[in-house]
Amino acid sequence: LPAADAFRHRCRHWVTDDVTGHQDSLRRRVWIQISPLGWPHDGLSWPNRIIVVMIIAASVTAIGETEPTIRAAARPLFFGLEVFFVSIFVVEYLARVWTSIEDPRFHHAVWGRLRYMVSFWALVDLVAILPVLLTLVGPDVFLIRLLRLLRILRLARLGRFSTALQNLGEAVALRRFELAMSAGVAVLLLVFSSTLLYLFEGPEQPDTFGSIPRAAWWSVVTLTTVGYGDVYPVTTMGRLFAAVTAVAGIGLIAMPTGILASAFSDVLQRRRRLEGDAE
Amino acid sequence: LPAADAFRHRCRHWVTDDVTGHQDSLRRRVWIQISPLGWPHDGLSWPNRIIVVMIIAASVTAIGETEPTIRAAARPLFFGLEVFFVSIFVVEYLARVWTSIEDPRFHHAVWGRLRYMVSFWALVDLVAILPVLLTLVGPDVFLIRLLRLLRILRLARLGRFSTALQNLGEAVALRRFELAMSAGVAVLLLVFSSTLLYLFEGPEQPDTFGSIPRAAWWSVVTLTTVGYGDVYPVTTMGRLFAAVTAVAGIGLIAMPTGILASAFSDVLQRRRRLEGDAE
Amino acid sequence: LPAADAFRHRCRHWVTDDVTGHQDSLRRRVWIQISPLGWPHDGLSWPNRIIVVMIIAASVTAIGETEPTIRAAARPLFFGLEVFFVSIFVVEYLARVWTSIEDPRFHHAVWGRLRYMVSFWALVDLVAILPVLLTLVGPDVFLIRLLRLLRILRLARLGRFSTALQNLGEAVALRRFELAMSAGVAVLLLVFSSTLLYLFEGPEQPDTFGSIPRAAWWSVVTLTTVGYGDVYPVTTMGRLFAAVTAVAGIGLIAMPTGILASAFSDVLQRRRRLEGDAE
Amino acid sequence: LPAADAFRHRCRHWVTDDVTGHQDSLRRRVWIQISPLGWPHDGLSWPNRIIVVMIIAASVTAIGETEPTIRAAARPLFFGLEVFFVSIFVVEYLARVWTSIEDPRFHHAVWGRLRYMVSFWALVDLVAILPVLLTLVGPDVFLIRLLRLLRILRLARLGRFSTALQNLGEAVALRRFELAMSAGVAVLLLVFSSTLLYLFEGPEQPDTFGSIPRAAWWSVVTLTTVGYGDVYPVTTMGRLFAAVTAVAGIGLIAMPTGILASAFSDVLQRRRRLEGDAE
Repeated sequence: LPAADAFRHRCRHWVTDDVTGHQDSLRRRVWIQISPLGWPHDGLSWPNRIIVVMIIAASVTAIGETEPTIRAAARPLFFGLEVFFVSIFVVEYLARVWTSIEDPRFHHAVWGRLRYMVSFWALVDLVAILPVLLTLVGPDVFLIRLLRLLRILRLARLGRFSTALQNLGEAVALRRFELAMSAGVAVLLLVFSSTLLYLFEGPEQPDTFGSIPRAAWWSVVTLTTVGYGDVYPVTTMGRLFAAVTAVAGIGLIAMPTGILASAFSDVLQRRRRLEGDAE
Repeated sequence: LPAADAFRHRCRHWVTDDVTGHQDSLRRRVWIQISPLGWPHDGLSWPNRIIVVMIIAASVTAIGETEPTIRAAARPLFFGLEVFFVSIFVVEYLARVWTSIEDPRFHHAVWGRLRYMVSFWALVDLVAILPVLLTLVGPDVFLIRLLRLLRILRLARLGRFSTALQNLGEAVALRRFELAMSAGVAVLLLVFSSTLLYLFEGPEQPDTFGSIPRAAWWSVVTLTTVGYGDVYPVTTMGRLFAAVTAVAGIGLIAMPTGILASAFSDVLQRRRRLEGDAE
Repeated sequence: LPAADAFRHRCRHWVTDDVTGHQDSLRRRVWIQISPLGWPHDGLSWPNRIIVVMIIAASVTAIGETEPTIRAAARPLFFGLEVFFVSIFVVEYLARVWTSIEDPRFHHAVWGRLRYMVSFWALVDLVAILPVLLTLVGPDVFLIRLLRLLRILRLARLGRFSTALQNLGEAVALRRFELAMSAGVAVLLLVFSSTLLYLFEGPEQPDTFGSIPRAAWWSVVTLTTVGYGDVYPVTTMGRLFAAVTAVAGIGLIAMPTGILASAFSDVLQRRRRLEGDAE
Repeated sequence: LPAADAFRHRCRHWVTDDVTGHQDSLRRRVWIQISPLGWPHDGLSWPNRIIVVMIIAASVTAIGETEPTIRAAARPLFFGLEVFFVSIFVVEYLARVWTSIEDPRFHHAVWGRLRYMVSFWALVDLVAILPVLLTLVGPDVFLIRLLRLLRILRLARLGRFSTALQNLGEAVALRRFELAMSAGVAVLLLVFSSTLLYLFEGPEQPDTFGSIPRAAWWSVVTLTTVGYGDVYPVTTMGRLFAAVTAVAGIGLIAMPTGILASAFSDVLQRRRRLEGDAE
């Protein structure tokens, strides 16, 4: 029975680490299409472009569904859309697991696939599918909200496709030490300004300045120059130190901005020098 | 009848693509005066200076007219001014269409003029004349407001005369990729902070945090550090994530600032190197 | 009567343009002490240091006097202090006018002094003395407030002594063109965002968005990211364009910051190159 | 009695300036472990790492204790923790005083130690221990708040261990002159905007703009773009000058940011040039 033999061979091919097979095996062709690593051209392959659009569409749907007025108007539509998106993501997830052993890092039929399944992006993909399972738990309000949050987290999957975003991240990483330092200065400023306002404003407004953690909310809102106006000092001493805090907030904005400005200028000069050497 | 012949010749000259005629034909002389492309000197020609002043004056008039107290005091004056400005802009528009075939790009009496009329700046000029036609539609409140908006849009016509503004735009265009990236990061921040606040603050304040689109208004106001204070979190978890959002807002300001700072520094160095090579 | 002769000679010396006299004439010695131009050493001379302290002290006094609770407690003290400061400034003003002809630019006993008196800093000095005269006008509330403003304006006199501040100003002047451009962009943003909010928010909140000038107050407060919260949009379309305005406000902050950052870096590099050439 | 001799010798060794003794004396070994100056390796020694953790833990405890709800729940726990932290800091302080004479700067058994005790960081350490003594004074509310502030001040002790923070400070110090200048410009802006608002807004809102010091609170909140919204102008002239102030506030943020951006870029280039020379 040659047909049965061929089928059995095919199955064995799928589950074993026979990666030295034909270059144009179905698995390899799928892998090349859906894995950024395997894709030999610039930009994204058509399957990945469709997935990017699906991720954005699923997120927009999930955001819109949170609005009660919209949800009430089209409950079945949202259910249908969610089933549609999750089906696509499940198919995509299975395809990624199936083809993962084409990747030299996961070069084993069983262990390679398992190791792929616990890799960062594979877990992110899995989390994007889970919300459907959570709906089985029950109609608890907080869980339903959490579920929607998880749907939005699918957007994080876009990170996989964006090497440019990773470049931007590298530019930031170049100055991570200085940025961490200015973050440390920010924390010290936060603690000291909260303490001073607690000291002088606390007796007057115990609800909002009656402890350092309470005063910290005011302090964050002031140091970042957001200034909602729900909490503000009313005593002379409190206003004096609040003014100092607000001015320090400008420095808090100026420092990371200055650090990043020099980092971007630096990344660019280096890139140009490399291009100059290449010529 | 030589006079009739001359008149017919003149008309043919106006409507045909006879652009190989005398260098000092009236049409060419007008074109040189009103087209920035034809003007051989630095700065603006006198007719264009007058038009710039007219655009600004017409915009200031249109802005002032929206104020009920001012409009009530001087209704006929505003009507007269509007007729006056529109007359000038109509004359200017006809002159631009008439002389457009002097421009090598629109080098045909009929098709060239039609192609000019659908070019970007010609459409902007046309939109600046249209409001008068809209007044015929009737006294609908929204239409009258829209009409005033269109009058203000005349200011956009100034862009035609400002090569410097275009240079500034080019400096921004140089880093359009990085700026688009930080815009993408901003959108992700917006979505995640809205989702978190919806999650923790929604049950407490359903009117303002009851859905992700509702929480997005708070999120924009916080990330841009505007902080009106019409919406702010009151729960401990909501305040915690709001503090993280506010701090992320500083990064959101720092990133484009850093990118633009290095872009300006880069444009300047390049310009200087070019000047150095020229010497 | 040689004493009378000497006295007459001295008077003639004072009022004539006898500037070729003794290098150590009293007038010249006073001029060297009080004129930054004549002072051959670094920093400020002792008389000018005293005047700087007096200007600051007079301003602090004038600021404190505006507070009703402080003024009520020590009315005679404030009167005495004001008389004291004005006396010193009158003496200083007369000394400057008297010695001004030592300055090569004002090299004539009468015309030189008159020309000095209409020079910028001499007028600023005069304005600092005038408030006392204004007190004779009467007890009109607004005039008394204006009078105090003029006293504060004495602080502007410090500009005379600060060459460093002038350097900072030069660094800004280096990019005045780009800064003017971003100011122009800011005005366009202001006009367009005010118009859009007037269009969509006006029917809902006529008191605060009922005309473009009224909406402009909201627009300034948002574009500068101040965000008092006295005025904010409540309609969906209004909030949408308000969000766009707030984001544009970040660009509005980023642009001058980027321009100034590259200007400061540029001024420094140039200074260093000059020092390098000198070595 | 050789044991008594050895003991007496040891005591003499401790209190005399016998620093030419064995390299591996206990005092020297302790000094090497706890003094950043003596530590020959990169990073922090284990005793200092423990102290850093203790300082942070003590501060977090002191911050948490100010919250009435937390304090009420665990009063004995906070007392125990405070006794524990203070004991450690007392031991640390005594160890630092005892070993200070190993430092060449304090090379005398009595005077060296006394001079160490009045050095900056030794006084900071002492202040961190004092709060316990203050508790003996009595249960005055303000004193207890001040006491907690002093506990938080222990965080300042971290500065001793952070050479990186000192580097950041040096980068700022490099442009201290320009930063001081922009601070001066800020003060002038503050005074003039307060005066103008006092002039035009004062008659309308005497409580908040009735004197220049009162208007200064509004001015700081606006110039730093915090904008709480507790105070804002309502008159046309007041709003006009407030708009100018808010725009000037952008310049106030742009200036130090630009200065710091060029400073960071400068520090980096210099460091690289030094590394380039070294290669």
